[in-house]
Amino acid sequence: MEKTTVTLNDVCEAAERIKPYVVRTKLIRQKTMDEKLGCKVYLKPEMLQITGAFKMRGAMNKILSLSQEERDRGIICSSSGNHGQACALAGKMTGTHVVVVLPEDAPHVKIDKAKALGAEVVLGPRYYDDRWKMVKEIQEKNGYTMAHGYEDYTVMAGQGTIGLEILEDLPYVDTVLVPVGGGGLIAGVATAIKEINPKVRIIGVQAKASDGYVQSRKAGHRVEVECFPSLADGLGCRKPGENPYPICEKYVDDFVSVTEEDIKEAVKLVASEAKLVAEPSSCVGIAALLGGEVKVSPDENVCFILTSGNWDIDMIGKILNDEPVEGML
Amino acid sequence: MEKTTVTLNDVCEAAERIKPYVVRTKLIRQKTMDEKLGCKVYLKPEMLQITGAFKMRGAMNKILSLSQEERDRGIICSSSGNHGQACALAGKMTGTHVVVVLPEDAPHVKIDKAKALGAEVVLGPRYYDDRWKMVKEIQEKNGYTMAHGYEDYTVMAGQGTIGLEILEDLPYVDTVLVPVGGGGLIAGVATAIKEINPKVRIIGVQAKASDGYVQSRKAGHRVEVECFPSLADGLGCRKPGENPYPICEKYVDDFVSVTEEDIKEAVKLVASEAKLVAEPSSCVGIAALLGGEVKVSPDENVCFILTSGNWDIDMIGKILNDEPVEGML
Repeated sequence: MEKTTVTLNDVCEAAERIKPYVVRTKLIRQKTMDEKLGCKVYLKPEMLQITGAFKMRGAMNKILSLSQEERDRGIICSSSGNHGQACALAGKMTGTHVVVVLPEDAPHVKIDKAKALGAEVVLGPRYYDDRWKMVKEIQEKNGYTMAHGYEDYTVMAGQGTIGLEILEDLPYVDTVLVPVGGGGLIAGVATAIKEINPKVRIIGVQAKASDGYVQSRKAGHRVEVECFPSLADGLGCRKPGENPYPICEKYVDDFVSVTEEDIKEAVKLVASEAKLVAEPSSCVGIAALLGGEVKVSPDENVCFILTSGNWDIDMIGKILNDEPVEGML
Repeated sequence: MEKTTVTLNDVCEAAERIKPYVVRTKLIRQKTMDEKLGCKVYLKPEMLQITGAFKMRGAMNKILSLSQEERDRGIICSSSGNHGQACALAGKMTGTHVVVVLPEDAPHVKIDKAKALGAEVVLGPRYYDDRWKMVKEIQEKNGYTMAHGYEDYTVMAGQGTIGLEILEDLPYVDTVLVPVGGGGLIAGVATAIKEINPKVRIIGVQAKASDGYVQSRKAGHRVEVECFPSLADGLGCRKPGENPYPICEKYVDDFVSVTEEDIKEAVKLVASEAKLVAEPSSCVGIAALLGGEVKVSPDENVCFILTSGNWDIDMIGKILNDEPVEGML
């Protein structure tokens, strides 16, 4: 039966399934950030996850949920970023054929990385809609299973395991801040946490450059927004995902957006205090507190999901040394 | 009875003692560095320790080992770096008065940091020998206990808890690479590991700019060397510590030294692959493999102790972005 949502049970099953393949990242109590952020700070360091991003959870859950026949045929995805890499590695670890469709102008380093992980790389049109048509064609022709980065309920369930782990490490968490692009991560995490404890506040954070969920919440329905260049390039998404959107409407308390300047400050704060390399997309939750977008109190236990650390390291260096970085608004 | 060495039992007792106060850092299996370094790579991420450095272990063990009378009088140390900060925080956590003696030209940020942690800061002469005389005078006048960063056996025992944890997480470790300045860390770690399993290879690593242990091993006795400026400023030490030296002679298999270029490469590698901010002193072990100073084999389980992450973050940024950094040879 085709899934039509994600449930707590799906997330719990995902946790059992992916356990042997992923890192159980431990929540970090970062006291040295309390004063600056005005609350008790906890970090979920998913840059320490395999492939340097949380995406491994969803990709692995997807592949491990396939029937043997489906797995023999293989999967297909279209992502030049962390989801594509995660699918490639999950395929390699399980002996599953993985096709990654990339835009023809993708950087060579991304193409090489996917190939090095054993994936078949297909180059397609630059524009998303055209490329998506190509992906569908290849999928149907070869009988591949689609592994969408945020529309797929099984992928969402995998990402949701982060929510379970937060509650295991910090049962008395008050607020969780989650970076939001398409919405797959927050849909999974919010489902897991709210179905266990509805009192936990879940807040989705986007860059002002690409704030589809913020605008949609205001409008009361999914709206398409323009995507401006942003340091938080991993969160660029013109429209909330069709499948995660209703889940977010049900479970997410609020959506806010942050400035590029606050994102930069957040990257520096995480590096200097927590000694972690976070890509800008990871740091929007911290940016939201720096910018006063979310109100917190000193005794509040606030958890920030730091999603990933896969930016070019010289660009991270520029941020840390207060130099201009391309792509800023 | 005055201690004259450090034993496995001292380290085990230290582990029990400091447990409630320190972070149990988990060994990271960093497969993505295997190919480049030519072995199975494990990282001990002590930048994730409280105060961003392993020094908290030794400082806390020292204070917790004092009698109530000694603790009421307070402790004194002379370190502008990680050891001073660790003593200050350990004092704060236990309600113990801590005096940190700093050179009069110490950066304001370091003075402020020690004060913010509740320590009494005394400014003394710039030159170590003159300052040390002053430290001794203040100590005797006030009845403080001296907490030396590497000569103190109780401090060494605290640092040695890293060795225990490595064996807990990786009982089949083959080789451990340890950054070496005065020698307190390696004396504690080597004692713990070799007294449990003498087959584990322990290698001390220094910067070529300050290689007292390397030269002393060659000469067969403690020799004084010149200290040139180095990125690994945390390891600058003109002469091996009197107390750790004989322990190292007994337990450390080899000492090697590394170039500034290899240290830079190592800092970048740790940031880009492990997503960890390591100060240059931390990375000499990895630099040793990059430079071919230590021979390893592909099946060898090699553990690198990453000691700390407390460098100015803009300087780290320069290294990551391949810009010149002051202080290089």
